[in-house]
Amino acid sequence: MIEDTIAAIGTALGQSGIAIVRVSGPKSLDVIDEHLKTPRNTSIYDLDKNTINYGHFYSKSGEVIDEVLVSVFKAPYSYTGEDVIEVNCHGGQIPIKKILTTILDSEIRLAEPGEFTKRAFLNGKLDLSQAEAVMDLISAKTDLSHNVANKQAAGQVSHEINIVRDKLLEVLANIEATIDYPDEFFDDISVDKMVEKLQNVKESINKLLKTASTGKLVREGIKTVIIGEPNVGKSSLLNALTKEDRAIVTDVPGTTRDVLQENINVRGVPLVILDTAGIRETKDKVEKIGVERTKEYINTSDLVLYVLDGSQNWTKENELILNLIKNKPRIVIVNKSDLSSKMDKKDIKNKVDCKVLSVSAEKRLGIETLEETILNLFEIGDINDNTFDVTISNLRHELALKEALKHINESINGLKHQNPVDIVSIDIREAWQYLGKITGDSLSRNLIDEIFSRFCLGK
Amino acid sequence: MIEDTIAAIGTALGQSGIAIVRVSGPKSLDVIDEHLKTPRNTSIYDLDKNTINYGHFYSKSGEVIDEVLVSVFKAPYSYTGEDVIEVNCHGGQIPIKKILTTILDSEIRLAEPGEFTKRAFLNGKLDLSQAEAVMDLISAKTDLSHNVANKQAAGQVSHEINIVRDKLLEVLANIEATIDYPDEFFDDISVDKMVEKLQNVKESINKLLKTASTGKLVREGIKTVIIGEPNVGKSSLLNALTKEDRAIVTDVPGTTRDVLQENINVRGVPLVILDTAGIRETKDKVEKIGVERTKEYINTSDLVLYVLDGSQNWTKENELILNLIKNKPRIVIVNKSDLSSKMDKKDIKNKVDCKVLSVSAEKRLGIETLEETILNLFEIGDINDNTFDVTISNLRHELALKEALKHINESINGLKHQNPVDIVSIDIREAWQYLGKITGDSLSRNLIDEIFSRFCLGK
Repeated sequence: MIEDTIAAIGTALGQSGIAIVRVSGPKSLDVIDEHLKTPRNTSIYDLDKNTINYGHFYSKSGEVIDEVLVSVFKAPYSYTGEDVIEVNCHGGQIPIKKILTTILDSEIRLAEPGEFTKRAFLNGKLDLSQAEAVMDLISAKTDLSHNVANKQAAGQVSHEINIVRDKLLEVLANIEATIDYPDEFFDDISVDKMVEKLQNVKESINKLLKTASTGKLVREGIKTVIIGEPNVGKSSLLNALTKEDRAIVTDVPGTTRDVLQENINVRGVPLVILDTAGIRETKDKVEKIGVERTKEYINTSDLVLYVLDGSQNWTKENELILNLIKNKPRIVIVNKSDLSSKMDKKDIKNKVDCKVLSVSAEKRLGIETLEETILNLFEIGDINDNTFDVTISNLRHELALKEALKHINESINGLKHQNPVDIVSIDIREAWQYLGKITGDSLSRNLIDEIFSRFCLGK
Repeated sequence: MIEDTIAAIGTALGQSGIAIVRVSGPKSLDVIDEHLKTPRNTSIYDLDKNTINYGHFYSKSGEVIDEVLVSVFKAPYSYTGEDVIEVNCHGGQIPIKKILTTILDSEIRLAEPGEFTKRAFLNGKLDLSQAEAVMDLISAKTDLSHNVANKQAAGQVSHEINIVRDKLLEVLANIEATIDYPDEFFDDISVDKMVEKLQNVKESINKLLKTASTGKLVREGIKTVIIGEPNVGKSSLLNALTKEDRAIVTDVPGTTRDVLQENINVRGVPLVILDTAGIRETKDKVEKIGVERTKEYINTSDLVLYVLDGSQNWTKENELILNLIKNKPRIVIVNKSDLSSKMDKKDIKNKVDCKVLSVSAEKRLGIETLEETILNLFEIGDINDNTFDVTISNLRHELALKEALKHINESINGLKHQNPVDIVSIDIREAWQYLGKITGDSLSRNLIDEIFSRFCLGK
C-alpha cells in the first residue's frame, strides 16, 4: 500500500491566469485543511467530493498567499484512486512556489515525474499501456498522433493484448491437461489445435506489429534536416511546409536554443525539422566546424531534404554534400522552379539516386508532391484516421511484441517437431509474459519505476 | 450588459499534466453541454454549481478529444460574475487546441488578454486597482513584490483611496452649502476647516506617494547591466548574486534569446540583470557593434555594475568604459579580491565618483555588502514586509496621485487667497476624479480597455 502523500505543480510553468498544485495521498485533506480558509470557515473534511471551493491559502505564519479554488476528490473516485486535492491559484511563479513549498513543509513529498499516473496504475485505475498513452496524449504534436494516443489511453491496445494473452492461457491450460492426463489429451489432434491457436496468436501479433513502424513515426515524428547553401530558400521551404500550423507549434517551450527546431505536421505525421541556419554563418574560418555539425545533424536524422537553387549552376560543393547524405533517406529539392532554371532536373537525376523534385517554396508550388514523396518514402502513404483503431506506437510495446512473437514461433516449431509439451509450454509462458509487459501485468517494479520516470512532472 | 461569451486557455503553454480552457458568459453552459458527456449522461444544466465533474469532451463530429474534468460556476458566483465553465484537460498542445477550437466554433469568441478580469471589474467583483494587482500577482518575481500585489489585490490601495476621496467629497459638500447659503456658511472658520481637511488629504496622498519609488522597484525590479572585460568574473558575480533562487527563475519562459536576462532577488527586490556576454564575442572586427550594444544596454538600465579584475592592471579601456557610464547609477566592483591585487581600491576611488567594492565572486566574499550598497543606492535600505501595508507600485497610480496632489495644492492655495469657492471646487473635483482613476470609478471605457489589454491571455 502507498502510505505517503505527494504534491507537484500540475500545469506548465510560465505566467498565466491559472496554475494548479496537485496533492494525492492519505494526508491530502489534512494538509490543505491546515492552510485553507473558506469564506464560511468550512473545514475541508466537510466539503463534498467533486466540488470546487473558493477560499484563501495561508502560509504557516498566517499570511495570505493567494486566493484559490480548491477541488476535492475523495478516494477511490480520483485520478490516482487516492484522496486528491487540486489547488487552483494564480499562475505566477511566487504564488505557485509558495503554495507548493507550504504543502511540502507538512511532511508531504514532492512527486516524482509521472508519479500521479503511476499511482493510478498501481491502484488499478489504468494499465501500463494506457498510462503510457497518457504521456503520448500530452506530447502529441499532430491530430493523428493525438488520435492514436487517445485510443490507446482508452485501452484499445490493452484490449487486443488481453485477447491474445487469453488465447495463450487456453493453450497453456491444454498443455497442463495433457501433462496431467497424457492418455486422454495428448494426441495429434490436440497438437494440431494448439498449433492452430498459436498461429492465430501469431497473426494477431503480426497485425499489431505491422502498425508499429507507422505508429512510431506518427508518435515521434520524422526527424528531418533541411540542408543547402545560403539563400537557396531553406527557410521559405520550412515556411511553405509549416503553413498556418506554425504559430501554435512555436509557442511551445522546450525547443533548443542552439538549433532551431520546428515541429510541423505533414498530413498528420509530425516532422521534426532541424533548421541548419547556423551552418551558413560558419562559412569563413570555421567551415570545418560547420561541416562537422552538418554531418552530426545528418547522422541523427531520419530524412534529409537537400535544397538546391535551380537558378544557380551545379558545383563541386553539390557533389560533396550529396556524398555526405548518400546513406540516408533523402530528397533533392530544386527550388525556385518558377525562375529560369539553370539546373536540369533530368541532369540532376542522373547524378543522384533519389527522388528529385522541383518546387517553388516562395509560390508554394510542388509542396503537395513533396509531402506525398516524404510519406511514400516512409511507406506511410495516405493515412486515414480510421485505419488506426489499434496502433502500436511505443517502442517498448513493439519490442515486447517481437519477443513474444519469437517465443510463439519457437513453440509452434516445437509442437511441429513433437518436442515435449512441457518444454514447449516454457516458450508459450514466455510469450504470455512478454505481452504482459505491455499492460504492465508482468513487469518488475524497477522497470515500472523507470517507465514512469520518463513522464513529465505533475502528471 | 455583456452579451457575448468568451473562451481562452487559462494555464501556461507547454507540456504538462493539466491545462485549463476557460469559458465565461451566458452561453458557457450551452456550448459545454453540446460537447461534454458525463458517465451518467447528466446534462451540464443539472450539475450543481461549484462542482467538478468527470467526463469526455467530444468534437463536433463525435470523436472523443480528451478525458476532462469540468468545473461549473454559475453567475454571479464566479470570477467574472458570469456563468463560467473551466475544462481541465491533458496539458498537451493538441487536446488544448482541439478543445478550444471546438468551443470557438460554437459562436464563442476568443477572449482578449485580460478580458476575464475586465468582466470581473465591469461586473463589480473587483475595482481597477485590484484587477491590476491580479496581474502583478502573476508577474511578481520575489516574495516582496508578491506580497505588495497580494495586499493590493485584497483592496488595500482602493481602501485608502476611497477614504481620501470621501474626504474630498465632504469638502465639496461644504462648498456646495456655502454657495447655496452664502451668509450662513461662508466665513473664515469654514475656510480654515476646508484647508485643514485638504491638508489632511495632501498628507495622505504624500504618504502614498512616498511608497511609490520603492513600490515601483519592488514591482518591476532594478534593471541592471553587468559590464566588464572578458574573464573578469561577470558570470561568477551573477552566480554569486543569484544563489539558489536561480533555478526556479530561469525555468520561466519569456526571457529573450539574444540577450541573456536573469531575474534575481536581492532581499525581496527583483534585479533584472542583462548579461552582456555577447559583447565579449565581438572583440575582433565588429567591436564597434559591441560598443554600440553596450551603450544601448547602459542607456536603458537603472544600474550598472562595472566589474574589474583586481589582479590585472588599470588600462585606458577602463577609463573609456567609466566615461560611458558616468551618468548612470553605478557601482565599480573589483573582483578576485582574494588574489594578489594589482589594482589599489583607493587608487580607483580617486578615479571614479561612485562606490568601489572589493569582492570575490568565486568565494562569495563581499556579496552582502554589494547587496546593501545596491539597496542603499536606491534608498530602499532594509525593507521589512510589514512596512508595505499600502504600497503604490503601479506607475499609473503614481501619476494619478501626483495629478491629484497638484490639484489639491491648487485648491489650498485658492482658498488661502480667498478665490471664489466655485473656482476652488473645480480643482477639488479634479483631484477627486484623478483618484477615481486608480479604482477605475472615473476612467473612460477606452482607457479601461487599454489597461486590460496589457494583461496576459486567459486571465
